[in-house]
Amino acid sequence: MSDNTYGKVFRVTTFGESHGPAVGAVVDGTPAGLPLEKSDIQKYLDRRKPGQSEFTTKRQESDEVEILSGVFEDKTLGTPIALLIRNSDQRSKDYSEIKDIYRPGHADFGFDQKFGFRDYRGGGRSSGRETAGRVAAGAVALKLLSSFGITVQAFTRSIGPFRIEDPEPDISKAAGNPLCIPDAGVFEKASEYVENIMKEGDSAGGVIECRIEGLSPGIGEPVFDKLDAELAKAIMSIGAVKGFEMGDGFRAAESLGSENNDPFINVDGRIAKESNHSGGTLGGMSDGSPLIFRAALKPTPSISKPQKTVDSSGREREIVIKGRHDPLIVPRAVVVVEAMAGIVISDLILRNRTARI
Amino acid sequence: MSDNTYGKVFRVTTFGESHGPAVGAVVDGTPAGLPLEKSDIQKYLDRRKPGQSEFTTKRQESDEVEILSGVFEDKTLGTPIALLIRNSDQRSKDYSEIKDIYRPGHADFGFDQKFGFRDYRGGGRSSGRETAGRVAAGAVALKLLSSFGITVQAFTRSIGPFRIEDPEPDISKAAGNPLCIPDAGVFEKASEYVENIMKEGDSAGGVIECRIEGLSPGIGEPVFDKLDAELAKAIMSIGAVKGFEMGDGFRAAESLGSENNDPFINVDGRIAKESNHSGGTLGGMSDGSPLIFRAALKPTPSISKPQKTVDSSGREREIVIKGRHDPLIVPRAVVVVEAMAGIVISDLILRNRTARI
Amino acid sequence: MSDNTYGKVFRVTTFGESHGPAVGAVVDGTPAGLPLEKSDIQKYLDRRKPGQSEFTTKRQESDEVEILSGVFEDKTLGTPIALLIRNSDQRSKDYSEIKDIYRPGHADFGFDQKFGFRDYRGGGRSSGRETAGRVAAGAVALKLLSSFGITVQAFTRSIGPFRIEDPEPDISKAAGNPLCIPDAGVFEKASEYVENIMKEGDSAGGVIECRIEGLSPGIGEPVFDKLDAELAKAIMSIGAVKGFEMGDGFRAAESLGSENNDPFINVDGRIAKESNHSGGTLGGMSDGSPLIFRAALKPTPSISKPQKTVDSSGREREIVIKGRHDPLIVPRAVVVVEAMAGIVISDLILRNRTARI
Amino acid sequence: MSDNTYGKVFRVTTFGESHGPAVGAVVDGTPAGLPLEKSDIQKYLDRRKPGQSEFTTKRQESDEVEILSGVFEDKTLGTPIALLIRNSDQRSKDYSEIKDIYRPGHADFGFDQKFGFRDYRGGGRSSGRETAGRVAAGAVALKLLSSFGITVQAFTRSIGPFRIEDPEPDISKAAGNPLCIPDAGVFEKASEYVENIMKEGDSAGGVIECRIEGLSPGIGEPVFDKLDAELAKAIMSIGAVKGFEMGDGFRAAESLGSENNDPFINVDGRIAKESNHSGGTLGGMSDGSPLIFRAALKPTPSISKPQKTVDSSGREREIVIKGRHDPLIVPRAVVVVEAMAGIVISDLILRNRTARI
Repeated sequence: MSDNTYGKVFRVTTFGESHGPAVGAVVDGTPAGLPLEKSDIQKYLDRRKPGQSEFTTKRQESDEVEILSGVFEDKTLGTPIALLIRNSDQRSKDYSEIKDIYRPGHADFGFDQKFGFRDYRGGGRSSGRETAGRVAAGAVALKLLSSFGITVQAFTRSIGPFRIEDPEPDISKAAGNPLCIPDAGVFEKASEYVENIMKEGDSAGGVIECRIEGLSPGIGEPVFDKLDAELAKAIMSIGAVKGFEMGDGFRAAESLGSENNDPFINVDGRIAKESNHSGGTLGGMSDGSPLIFRAALKPTPSISKPQKTVDSSGREREIVIKGRHDPLIVPRAVVVVEAMAGIVISDLILRNRTARI
Repeated sequence: MSDNTYGKVFRVTTFGESHGPAVGAVVDGTPAGLPLEKSDIQKYLDRRKPGQSEFTTKRQESDEVEILSGVFEDKTLGTPIALLIRNSDQRSKDYSEIKDIYRPGHADFGFDQKFGFRDYRGGGRSSGRETAGRVAAGAVALKLLSSFGITVQAFTRSIGPFRIEDPEPDISKAAGNPLCIPDAGVFEKASEYVENIMKEGDSAGGVIECRIEGLSPGIGEPVFDKLDAELAKAIMSIGAVKGFEMGDGFRAAESLGSENNDPFINVDGRIAKESNHSGGTLGGMSDGSPLIFRAALKPTPSISKPQKTVDSSGREREIVIKGRHDPLIVPRAVVVVEAMAGIVISDLILRNRTARI
Repeated sequence: MSDNTYGKVFRVTTFGESHGPAVGAVVDGTPAGLPLEKSDIQKYLDRRKPGQSEFTTKRQESDEVEILSGVFEDKTLGTPIALLIRNSDQRSKDYSEIKDIYRPGHADFGFDQKFGFRDYRGGGRSSGRETAGRVAAGAVALKLLSSFGITVQAFTRSIGPFRIEDPEPDISKAAGNPLCIPDAGVFEKASEYVENIMKEGDSAGGVIECRIEGLSPGIGEPVFDKLDAELAKAIMSIGAVKGFEMGDGFRAAESLGSENNDPFINVDGRIAKESNHSGGTLGGMSDGSPLIFRAALKPTPSISKPQKTVDSSGREREIVIKGRHDPLIVPRAVVVVEAMAGIVISDLILRNRTARI
Repeated sequence: MSDNTYGKVFRVTTFGESHGPAVGAVVDGTPAGLPLEKSDIQKYLDRRKPGQSEFTTKRQESDEVEILSGVFEDKTLGTPIALLIRNSDQRSKDYSEIKDIYRPGHADFGFDQKFGFRDYRGGGRSSGRETAGRVAAGAVALKLLSSFGITVQAFTRSIGPFRIEDPEPDISKAAGNPLCIPDAGVFEKASEYVENIMKEGDSAGGVIECRIEGLSPGIGEPVFDKLDAELAKAIMSIGAVKGFEMGDGFRAAESLGSENNDPFINVDGRIAKESNHSGGTLGGMSDGSPLIFRAALKPTPSISKPQKTVDSSGREREIVIKGRHDPLIVPRAVVVVEAMAGIVISDLILRNRTARI
């Protein structure tokens, strides 16, 4: 039961293999009447697009989206919004020689075990290209959220060992930065680090942080579909993510209750929290503070250094991965994190409409 | 849309408030023919039961399960298995005085914001008692997994600052230990630490690690329902969990690709991995190595130290929480982690049955 | 994948075998704040209860419901409402002799084929007793609908060949009638007919009609989850139902468009329809007219006349069914039809809350 | 919550408005390894295509399908299969004058009530054109079923008052027939009848019957997702369908149990039924006999006779519908019935794979 749909009310289904004719998404459950134009979606796809800096793959994709349905006179109809992105620069021959070899750190082996065979061209459905559909769909979600006054902003908190220590950096500075690092000093060190890694044919990971503001308290469902749980799933479903934490996260495990509990206070007649160790959720529901979460991304598995592996017959082999690959996926994943967060929040806000009689 | 169901094929629905008549679960989707007796479930509930050591709440609950349906002649029928656990020791009056006050770190405020009112007795549905239903349901899952030769074992990796450094401790030693710490030295320090915290009316957190062995490769769905993503959601849906990581997790963000990639090797004709930085998943599917994940639990929010907060009218108040509370929830959560992991794996294994023609 | 849940937002899960400890339901998704007491549910169960007239099984069941969760201070909490009905009068020995024989018209053969074995006592989960859970859950739905000013009323349109010809009989007269026939003349003929059938150890079927008033236009989803489609599924999922029609139904297939189209008119400033051939739905959405649908129920398969059949080894056998059975299920199914209709409408009304921005 | 997805394991999502850029479907959950080519899908679309006889709309659509994903080297990958059909002959201006008027028998009023506005061009998403996506998706299902040896064949049982009385006509004769009537005599009368109706600017309805052979017993889920219930929903979700019956259907309501029960017999060592009043289902599961069901279709609502209606401001108006419309939809709906039946059966067969341990 391969289920390529995320969400219960705001429902996103993605499709497409890396080197097939197209990738895309169907967004079902968007309320009718939301203003939506192609440019609302394109601007997010443009941020994800490869080839924008020295740090990303050289694959060229225009990644132009076509809205196939669900929008009429620039407003959503309440019907499914199908979004199509053609694959244009498919150099499938790059992959034929790894057709029968399992790349370390990749999904190849699992696909063969699960399905009996796989589309080996560019990783097929396990390619990072699959996230284009997520970003297109997420753009619809983020547009919906912006109509409710909610903002979702992610940035690179760290690359390898280089980390922004300021708890609240000015995220707006991440926008123009090739590594999405809103801190000039850390950017300088990180970019030098990545350049060196690239020279060695190696790759790096990092941590993305996301901040969501404007969410009313009470969003999220108390038991299995907690706000934190849904975010964790959505973010961990992005290819390279290996860890997720909310607010203080792993550090909370070392705190005392008296330190970790955020006192409630009254700010101009509104109930608020004095601190935000919780990262904006209590009991799985938003608590009125900004949502803060972090995702740990492993280094890109495609490296050009020789690696030990086996082929599909089990014979041990050495592999040297060619083709066009990102030495680190973190900066391109920033917008994917925003997209997935947007989808989760949109879904939970709509679900919340039936909470009361 | 409050959805209290987890899973797509193996589906668990829990119900019950802490101080209502009962808690429980309906397990739908268990294949027919699985041997199942009450004792298979009771033994897990007994591990979760309060009052078993100095480190847990003094609330007394027999937590005896009744199988209401779905089992006939000690075998599952393929129909829903309803599991009932009566609440017996409800001292609701303990809670009447906090009826209108929002406890810091608790779900009270969110519930009121979401639903307009709440069952304030013992946290209602946000109580840790809700996990009894999860454990009962998880016991069915774990029985199913054991019939497939799969084992799920969790333990306490750390309490506050005290952590087991051995990457692979002997988990079987966690069983008899009041803190579920399979390391005598760490246990000694941690228990002393917790005793001091209890004296001060404070609370502690910690990290639980879980190891799953015997899983074939290819389990998990490649896009949104990745094995890691489903585990992340299930584990983050447990009350106090604020962080989740798979394999090297957050440390992977600092590694190089050449370090993090696990080479494939041939072990006696079987494809295996030489190392396990991935924690047993690649591309969202099991890769044949043991699954390893960790959950960070925040300190219990119920502390008896005076705290600053507000009441439902927004007036600032001081609160001193009385009643019977756990100074740390980690040891009792170990079996809840196993239960939720069991549910996830059972669901994904059954889902995998339709992967191929 | 045995899925015993109905609904997407208002979600009902039933459980229980006929001769196990209990049957029941978990109702998830009821908005918080709905007044709900045990008597709101009990009154519907009492209508379904066996042993109320000469025309129904002699099995005695008090069918008393216990609300296990989800209600606090007589209002719904927004959390799952678990409803428990103990089985009390289980004469399982009546069934031991048909353990290995497939009763014609029953689910026995299918259960064995599907699951490998079955709970043969009283049909297990395929028993009409399973509908007690539906009725209990449906009572919650009907209470919710009544809070919105919506009424759901079903009655017996025909028993065997005896049919009420009046298109709009006074449904309130069905209430006290043992056959739920709101027409004295038809009742007289039908009851005589059933009495004769009972003497011969045979059984009868009939048609139930249901009328729903007070529904706003636009309820129902335009494509797969059309109002008619959801009603059809819910009603066809009741044991003996073999046909379903909406409005003119099968007769519409013989009409001309000019006859079948209901003209829109303006009634005191409100858009309405001059006729109601559609039965209250257009394009899968409510059109403002009363919903009218009919269900055809086959005769009860349990008859005491000797029948030809086979046993589980395939040997041909003669069977004479003993035990306590209904000679016709139609009157007891009337409240089940109301319950299922209530569940469908509640679900679709709540789903409609996210139709617009 | 507009949910445009059908099925739980074999999942079909359709999208597209009649006069937007395209219609299509995403088929998720097809097992990997099924041979599938464009022609497998195109041949079903060609049967649905308009303009093939004097009895259908003159709208010209090539209805050529493009497979965007999920297929590699002519085999399914186990990933979503996205199917795209461009709209080519959109004469939107035909509709501008009915932009504010509610056509009797159409979904216009419901759409406005639900969503606040609508794509009035050709009915938007409520157009019969939406079924192109269903047929494309259904073709994948029917290919899957054929790989299991299961056949699905529908035909026109009646048009208006003209009905094939033979209980088992030779369905293969329906293929070349413009009305899909496999009986020369009935065809002659029916076609004359339709020609007269067309002259008067009126429309007709009819009954479609479907027969499914080769299904093992035990398919279908015992409670809510009964085989009959799922078929009822799927078929009632097709635009004009107002009634559904299984086997004897409404006639069963007039039978005695001794007549309606099908005796089990042993045929060459296999358990079978001597008759098939049940239409191939018992207790919601297949019983080994052919599945037989019927759908009643209302006359097409678009007629050119003047009709009474209102506009969106509530003013009473007369409407004369222009444009290109089918005088009866029955023959084009035959393949839609097969498609939907194929989707249901595929889903339930795959779901059945987890019935036993």
